[in-house]
Amino acid sequence: MTEVVLGKNQYGKAQNHVVRINRDNDRHIIRDLVVTSQLRGDLTEVHTKGDNAHCVPTDTQKNTVFAFAQKYDVKSPENLILKLSDHFTSEFDWISGGRWAADEYRWDRINDNDHCFVQNKQEVRTSVLVTDGDKKTVISGFKDLTILKSTESGFEGYPKDQYTTLKETTDRIMSTDVATRWRYNTTDVDFDAVYDSVKNIILTKFTDHYSRALQETLYLMGKAVIEAHPEIDEIKFSCPNKHHFVYDLSFCDLGNNNETHYAADRPFGLIEATVQRKGAAEDEHAWMGITGFC
Amino acid sequence: MTEVVLGKNQYGKAQNHVVRINRDNDRHIIRDLVVTSQLRGDLTEVHTKGDNAHCVPTDTQKNTVFAFAQKYDVKSPENLILKLSDHFTSEFDWISGGRWAADEYRWDRINDNDHCFVQNKQEVRTSVLVTDGDKKTVISGFKDLTILKSTESGFEGYPKDQYTTLKETTDRIMSTDVATRWRYNTTDVDFDAVYDSVKNIILTKFTDHYSRALQETLYLMGKAVIEAHPEIDEIKFSCPNKHHFVYDLSFCDLGNNNETHYAADRPFGLIEATVQRKGAAEDEHAWMGITGFC
Amino acid sequence: MTEVVLGKNQYGKAQNHVVRINRDNDRHIIRDLVVTSQLRGDLTEVHTKGDNAHCVPTDTQKNTVFAFAQKYDVKSPENLILKLSDHFTSEFDWISGGRWAADEYRWDRINDNDHCFVQNKQEVRTSVLVTDGDKKTVISGFKDLTILKSTESGFEGYPKDQYTTLKETTDRIMSTDVATRWRYNTTDVDFDAVYDSVKNIILTKFTDHYSRALQETLYLMGKAVIEAHPEIDEIKFSCPNKHHFVYDLSFCDLGNNNETHYAADRPFGLIEATVQRKGAAEDEHAWMGITGFC
Amino acid sequence: MTEVVLGKNQYGKAQNHVVRINRDNDRHIIRDLVVTSQLRGDLTEVHTKGDNAHCVPTDTQKNTVFAFAQKYDVKSPENLILKLSDHFTSEFDWISGGRWAADEYRWDRINDNDHCFVQNKQEVRTSVLVTDGDKKTVISGFKDLTILKSTESGFEGYPKDQYTTLKETTDRIMSTDVATRWRYNTTDVDFDAVYDSVKNIILTKFTDHYSRALQETLYLMGKAVIEAHPEIDEIKFSCPNKHHFVYDLSFCDLGNNNETHYAADRPFGLIEATVQRKGAAEDEHAWMGITGFC
Repeated sequence: MTEVVLGKNQYGKAQNHVVRINRDNDRHIIRDLVVTSQLRGDLTEVHTKGDNAHCVPTDTQKNTVFAFAQKYDVKSPENLILKLSDHFTSEFDWISGGRWAADEYRWDRINDNDHCFVQNKQEVRTSVLVTDGDKKTVISGFKDLTILKSTESGFEGYPKDQYTTLKETTDRIMSTDVATRWRYNTTDVDFDAVYDSVKNIILTKFTDHYSRALQETLYLMGKAVIEAHPEIDEIKFSCPNKHHFVYDLSFCDLGNNNETHYAADRPFGLIEATVQRKGAAEDEHAWMGITGFC
Repeated sequence: MTEVVLGKNQYGKAQNHVVRINRDNDRHIIRDLVVTSQLRGDLTEVHTKGDNAHCVPTDTQKNTVFAFAQKYDVKSPENLILKLSDHFTSEFDWISGGRWAADEYRWDRINDNDHCFVQNKQEVRTSVLVTDGDKKTVISGFKDLTILKSTESGFEGYPKDQYTTLKETTDRIMSTDVATRWRYNTTDVDFDAVYDSVKNIILTKFTDHYSRALQETLYLMGKAVIEAHPEIDEIKFSCPNKHHFVYDLSFCDLGNNNETHYAADRPFGLIEATVQRKGAAEDEHAWMGITGFC
Repeated sequence: MTEVVLGKNQYGKAQNHVVRINRDNDRHIIRDLVVTSQLRGDLTEVHTKGDNAHCVPTDTQKNTVFAFAQKYDVKSPENLILKLSDHFTSEFDWISGGRWAADEYRWDRINDNDHCFVQNKQEVRTSVLVTDGDKKTVISGFKDLTILKSTESGFEGYPKDQYTTLKETTDRIMSTDVATRWRYNTTDVDFDAVYDSVKNIILTKFTDHYSRALQETLYLMGKAVIEAHPEIDEIKFSCPNKHHFVYDLSFCDLGNNNETHYAADRPFGLIEATVQRKGAAEDEHAWMGITGFC
Repeated sequence: MTEVVLGKNQYGKAQNHVVRINRDNDRHIIRDLVVTSQLRGDLTEVHTKGDNAHCVPTDTQKNTVFAFAQKYDVKSPENLILKLSDHFTSEFDWISGGRWAADEYRWDRINDNDHCFVQNKQEVRTSVLVTDGDKKTVISGFKDLTILKSTESGFEGYPKDQYTTLKETTDRIMSTDVATRWRYNTTDVDFDAVYDSVKNIILTKFTDHYSRALQETLYLMGKAVIEAHPEIDEIKFSCPNKHHFVYDLSFCDLGNNNETHYAADRPFGLIEATVQRKGAAEDEHAWMGITGFC
């Protein structure tokens, strides 16, 4: 007879949109986060017996997210979710860990005004915390940073077979939406400062070389981040190669020297790569459930 | 017996994504447009008889968009669509006018690099041209500019009835995504310069007063634009009131002095208003089909 | 000196997501609507003076939407918004009219169960009511009904110029997402019954002819609707031509007799057409602000 | 000195939208797939040295997807991606495996017509194949199946703390968008038939019990699938708890006996659970990169 068992599981409240205004001074500070809380632990009978004695309501998780934003302010997304994890695992003895995530939307001041802001949508900052007993793994990152270089990129020397029609090139547009996540080897980090540094390294590295493939450029970005940040052991990228095809205008006798392009939506190249500090411990479980990373 | 007739109609190719790199100098210039072309004219028999003799293919319209981006460069979105309109109405004598639209996505340089860019997603620039014979109406604008003020906004003095539960307030968050469109009374405009000016006026006006309702703020923005720009006769706004509710934390004995908010998605307030130059001619037909403007 | 005036305006609460369960019998009935309410009238001083005495809060409009769903049940989307309009224009004497819209999401029963449902996402039903004093215009419709015919469609006989590269064809895939809106000449309608009939006419008409262009097919659909429904004076369509390109596999010596296609996202053809009852009155203002209809 | 190494990586072409018409008979058959192909293997020097000798172009992967759809028809999404995997790993000796995914969009016939179809959007079928040398893991599933029960659901007996404000209930709306993936223990499967069976089991199971929590219902669904299908070793669910709040209408003296609800977008509950065949082998790596599953 077939026997079934409950496997891995977690549950909670997703996408609590918290906007916190620090009004301690006339010059307000805004932090705008979308926070997800999910608990893990001894939850078997919730599933198998309909016994909710261990089922801390997702509504309670929501209340706690907002209460903690108020109680502790929001020093950084990572700081808030670290406090949430400590709370749930200490408050409920059957909760052994969980997964917390916070996406941050950034605002700039309008004309340096004290309380008027315009949203900066260049990228979305991401953070994930996975805890299991005393083990805590923080994975920070960002997504949707759209970059493009109009030259200094090519693609040659690849293998050909009967299905190959692509022409080699030494000058093309290269463009991607950078999604990246890096894993810290500690929680004792100035998360805001490291974030700004990593983003700056990635942007700067994009500019400084002729790219022979998006793979090479991602590797160089990751290498520079690992070298600059001893608190980071691993960084992953999941990046589309956003194709810009030179529009063939020969039908109307117009030249087109890599000037006018058709930007395609789908299909797109999709490049995923990991760069690691040699010899550092791995932590594959912390990466589970993060979209688009192998 | 029932007789039916063909009413207003137009057709074309939507969302041609043109990325144009001006490579005349080492310092490349990028213009990134999504262009729609739609033709109007004597098209009755295309519909009623299946006779395509007047049906300039949408594929031809697409080819023309890319060819013109190459032939004339992209000086501004408005300049490109003005050239497209002139072409189609002169090339095909049964085409009496049409509607062309171009949305522009802006790119900033990375570290002032000559050919490396990062997309600036603060807002999307929009432009529409409607022509009918010799008449040409340009409506420019932008959408998705997200702004917020964390104080200096309230809402009081409104009528109450049996369905009213809202409390009056003199201090709340006010936030919106500005969608605005302004109608020019001429095509002889430095469209890029006026665009920058209008955006700046709107952002600055947002900061300079205590707002008694989003309606008042939109009116003040529009008034300032009309006063500063004689080439603009009319400006419309369609703006959500993005609600930020103070999260009631009394259940856990925490205060909350307008600090920690829950940002709701739906429903939202929706405010639409038009500000016009007194005595200027109207042009209602040019506004048809623009989303969310009354 | 420049003088500015307030032009057309309206305001309200958008996207109230009402899910109403009629529990009068064990066999529950579900109606799932997203309702927008916007008021028009004497609102000038709200904008120009910051005087909110005429500004019925959008929050009150929201409360009223939910209260009316409960009080009157939801007989049809149109019935609900007709009641809302009557209420606001009679309750507040400075409110002369407005615009109400309701999108409906349809649910099917699972295995004919009394209270378990699965959402049917074939299309979204739409309805708009525009009132001005005693005048009431109802425009109903649907959007996102995706249809495709794999043969019995071609495109020939069109004009060619220097920008034309398209080849003529007598056999191609034709596919579109039907967005259509029809204007009633009365409010005394069984709105649910007419909705089902119009949808059925449009689907059936799609199947019964060789299509020489999407324009011809839309006209035939509209003509059939007008002929069948005396209570409808006008119907508009806004339909993409969703391109399916035969993938050229000659590089690997495979034939492809209109079998394997690449479905493109952008650009797409965009066909908009109106079919009217001959001699019927027009009502252009009711169409303002409806996306994508000329 | 810091040393960095390349970690896990894969690359390919994402979202090839293949629409395949089988025209062998007048009664056409349509299969509509969005296919992603990603390769793994000895790709280190592509990243670290800019040497593309091992970099099978993503463009070649795209061509192969379309060629195989034509060459082998599309018997099922799983059959197509199994053929792709066999091809790439045998054609290129440095390619040791990869990841292929195909989402399928289903079409129904209009009035039983031979070649006219309307898209059925009830859910999106998903399939993923992960291979590593001779090991092949197929994970099938679907997403976005939206279901609701208007009674026979409650939530009681949960733990309370200082952050708990939720009230217990024995009658509420329960609604979710089912996303589920099941892992086969073989590739010798009639994938279409099993798909239909699993979907039917999940829908039917939803109707047959009073649900004490979404966790219980998901477990019961998974248990029924494992018991009915010996070729499935594991099934995962990632399901939002889509909150429908009874709208409090006491302000206007209207009752509301679980009839009129406000359907909220965010935040939402998020329940993830795995049900496994007892004693079956696990295969955690195959699950990497699948969104929203722990």
